[in-house]
Amino acid sequence: MNFCSNCGAAIVVRVPDGDTLPRHVCDACDTIHYRNPLVVVGSIPVWEDQVLLCKRAIEPRLGKWTLPAGFMELGESVAQGAIRETEEEARARVSLEDVFTMLSVPHVNQVHIFYRAQLLDLNFGPGSETLEVALFTEGRIPWQEIAFRTVLTTLTHFYADRRRGAYSMHTEDILAPKSTGGYKR
Amino acid sequence: MNFCSNCGAAIVVRVPDGDTLPRHVCDACDTIHYRNPLVVVGSIPVWEDQVLLCKRAIEPRLGKWTLPAGFMELGESVAQGAIRETEEEARARVSLEDVFTMLSVPHVNQVHIFYRAQLLDLNFGPGSETLEVALFTEGRIPWQEIAFRTVLTTLTHFYADRRRGAYSMHTEDILAPKSTGGYKR
Repeated sequence: MNFCSNCGAAIVVRVPDGDTLPRHVCDACDTIHYRNPLVVVGSIPVWEDQVLLCKRAIEPRLGKWTLPAGFMELGESVAQGAIRETEEEARARVSLEDVFTMLSVPHVNQVHIFYRAQLLDLNFGPGSETLEVALFTEGRIPWQEIAFRTVLTTLTHFYADRRRGAYSMHTEDILAPKSTGGYKR
Repeated sequence: MNFCSNCGAAIVVRVPDGDTLPRHVCDACDTIHYRNPLVVVGSIPVWEDQVLLCKRAIEPRLGKWTLPAGFMELGESVAQGAIRETEEEARARVSLEDVFTMLSVPHVNQVHIFYRAQLLDLNFGPGSETLEVALFTEGRIPWQEIAFRTVLTTLTHFYADRRRGAYSMHTEDILAPKSTGGYKR
């Protein structure tokens, strides 16, 4: 952030009066430009003993498999966002059940929220950000080809709870991957 | 949003290629400036049969009572944010229990998330945005003086669940208040 989006003047980074953190401040028009974490919303669409996954057509993780999910938009609820993303990415209609995972990913400033969902029909197909949509039984989930750790965590909890016969909500933090320990130049 | 925060050029509002919603776009440096909902995080600090509330020292709702809560910051988890806000607003230390409410407020583009929490000691007091901090038994909660509907909803569910002897998670949408039906000029 270099310029004030309100008046166009140069931005400075400093701790405003009464605040505790450095912010992007415009001293020309006295605006503080806050930056905050983003919410990613999605669903686990279930049909009988199968879960719907999408193969990503865009970066990051092009070609990897994910649950339908994306950034929550202005003017919608978390649930509306999860339904919308499922429709956009998988052209699928779902009936949402309970919130299943709420996973904070502080190193990328995101919170990922997934609902369990019942797929309402089999008329699904790839949206513009998806290469392929398919249903997988547990044994056929491409575990090595899952796009994001929040999706892997969500699917892992889903099958563990399913085996147990009871679904509960899972709240976790997904921390930055450990260093590989490789040499750095 | 009038100017590009990256290059300072004028912003136009249009639907970018491949998108479905109007965005703030800079055609000079090809940046799309997305705007997304904000997360508000807080806690329900409990001491024996009492709940801690804060009397607000700032607008909006100056002088009204609220649970300690505020905007989630970059680089923290939802839980870390709830603990931090409780410390900042009530100078109180809590041990978080389960997530209790996740309330979407689409007309103000916010999601409010509250954890149940145990107050660890009685060394609390007003932070800079708080006039007064106090513990209330259910019968003494100032129900008519609660600052926000998400706090009222959270406290209502809290006491209903407490009476029932079992806490569950509550996910709801708080919609815009209905028109008063009064004449408009």
